[in-house]
Amino acid sequence: MNVAGNPELLAANIRAGNRAALARGITLIESRRADHKATARELVQELLPATGNAIRVGITGSPGVGKSTTIDALGMDLITRGHRIAVLAVDPSSVRSGGSILGDKTRMARLAACEAAYIRPSPAAGTLGGVAARTREAMLLCEAAGFDVILVETVGIGQSETAVYDMTDFFLALMLPGAGDELQGIKKGIVELADMIAINKADGDNLPRANAAAASYRSALKILAPRSQHWSPPVVTYSGLTGSGIPELWQTIVEHRAAMNASGEFTQRRSLQQVKWMWSMFEDRMTARLRNDPSIRAKVKATETAVAEGRLTPGLGASQIAELLR
Amino acid sequence: MNVAGNPELLAANIRAGNRAALARGITLIESRRADHKATARELVQELLPATGNAIRVGITGSPGVGKSTTIDALGMDLITRGHRIAVLAVDPSSVRSGGSILGDKTRMARLAACEAAYIRPSPAAGTLGGVAARTREAMLLCEAAGFDVILVETVGIGQSETAVYDMTDFFLALMLPGAGDELQGIKKGIVELADMIAINKADGDNLPRANAAAASYRSALKILAPRSQHWSPPVVTYSGLTGSGIPELWQTIVEHRAAMNASGEFTQRRSLQQVKWMWSMFEDRMTARLRNDPSIRAKVKATETAVAEGRLTPGLGASQIAELLR
Repeated sequence: MNVAGNPELLAANIRAGNRAALARGITLIESRRADHKATARELVQELLPATGNAIRVGITGSPGVGKSTTIDALGMDLITRGHRIAVLAVDPSSVRSGGSILGDKTRMARLAACEAAYIRPSPAAGTLGGVAARTREAMLLCEAAGFDVILVETVGIGQSETAVYDMTDFFLALMLPGAGDELQGIKKGIVELADMIAINKADGDNLPRANAAAASYRSALKILAPRSQHWSPPVVTYSGLTGSGIPELWQTIVEHRAAMNASGEFTQRRSLQQVKWMWSMFEDRMTARLRNDPSIRAKVKATETAVAEGRLTPGLGASQIAELLR
Repeated sequence: MNVAGNPELLAANIRAGNRAALARGITLIESRRADHKATARELVQELLPATGNAIRVGITGSPGVGKSTTIDALGMDLITRGHRIAVLAVDPSSVRSGGSILGDKTRMARLAACEAAYIRPSPAAGTLGGVAARTREAMLLCEAAGFDVILVETVGIGQSETAVYDMTDFFLALMLPGAGDELQGIKKGIVELADMIAINKADGDNLPRANAAAASYRSALKILAPRSQHWSPPVVTYSGLTGSGIPELWQTIVEHRAAMNASGEFTQRRSLQQVKWMWSMFEDRMTARLRNDPSIRAKVKATETAVAEGRLTPGLGASQIAELLR
């Protein structure tokens, strides 16, 4: 398939909402071929004026928390309200595990069957930086294609939550019922990033445990100074299975957007994200220069080892590496 | 004063424990003159084999928590056990406020009068990265001069806790008694970095409040997965005023070191710190290249603005900046 082709034409087809063009555009973004990369950059720049209008929601949770069920239920609820939903994922492990968390669309069976939804598995690239960069650009393409809610899923391996936080407007952490010692299991950093903690499986016999967990999280959140003066992350319960509490999840996200718009933080967060993203891509490019030439790569490795073993000061090591880029 | 001079001779004098030489070496490190910088790099490399043997402890806490009193009491206790103590600080605000947190040695009156202690105020540089880099190298010089406990104080402005965490073996967070809503005041990130939380002013009428605060922090810590399998950060109370609990603070630090040594994490943390430090200095150097040339600086600024305002994709922005370094 000639995915490169004419970026202007591809852009026009994506803007017209053509799903095949959207898929081709994302494939282009994910390609590692140098000519594809150049065309992809043009494509994204061409579409830029048509992006930025969606509500971008990051969703994290450990395996088993019911992310797919939740996204399926939330997505269907949004579609009945007239929204168009794109579901993306950041899963740096997908290349090794052989299966993306979103590879199996049957896990979001109802949503996968809807014309108003677009589901795309995580790009299968090696590094988190690469996966995140491709997902960010895929998000822009989905926005240009008219999807007005973007849900970005992550299983939270390594720093992937931070990567998803850095590309979304609202970060939702899904948890399972459980209290006391079970809270120990929370990965460090999630609670600090979350704009809302939602406890799934608040149904049937689980209800008391879900409520107890919510109370624990609420008191735990007290030790953390909120990121924004205008938003204290709520802790809620819901059931992906019965759908109870799902409309309220969305209501909270809408309220958050209104609060951030009113305080000016929405524009500010988006601007900061854009600039941070640029610098992170700049660093990737510098790193690539150090990595692509085998003789430079070997020198960097030797310097790094000498510093790790305490034979060379970090300052001299940094000078040596900086000289390699002259 | 000719602080540059002969780095080999200066190194020998520092290794011999000469305090004037140590002070001159640190002044050299803090100098911004290009020739001084080059000599400083040689000096640090020369001393490198004599470094690394101290226990490096980071100490953070808001103004008013009693950091100076605590360091004074802890330092005096350590000196009676035969240790030699160096006290450094990372305070990026010192240049603006006109006074470093350690500038006034009378705040550590007993320690300042001891031959076995060396107190050095925070370098007065503009950026956190610069202050942290100079403090890290000052720490190495102090180790070479025979100080076997390094206490690095920070008031916790911006990311200064992370900078101090990245240069120490043990990160101690000091807190004031208080419970419930007062816990709200904790800066995000501190609890996650701390290897121990110690609540000061556990004396007299404050005792019940200190114990209540300790209980709150203990239950709050439950939501955070510990950084190490071999260490769960304890929450303790003490009094810098009466000295009660001070020996136990040190005992905990010693136990932590033993646990980290046994698990191999000590060596690993030090190696990772060295390599991370090198890359951060490398980035500083790249940034300096972009900043030092006025015409390059103006182009970077224009690119950054275009990206922030959504007129240019972060990917194209990164390419433009990367081209400037060709």
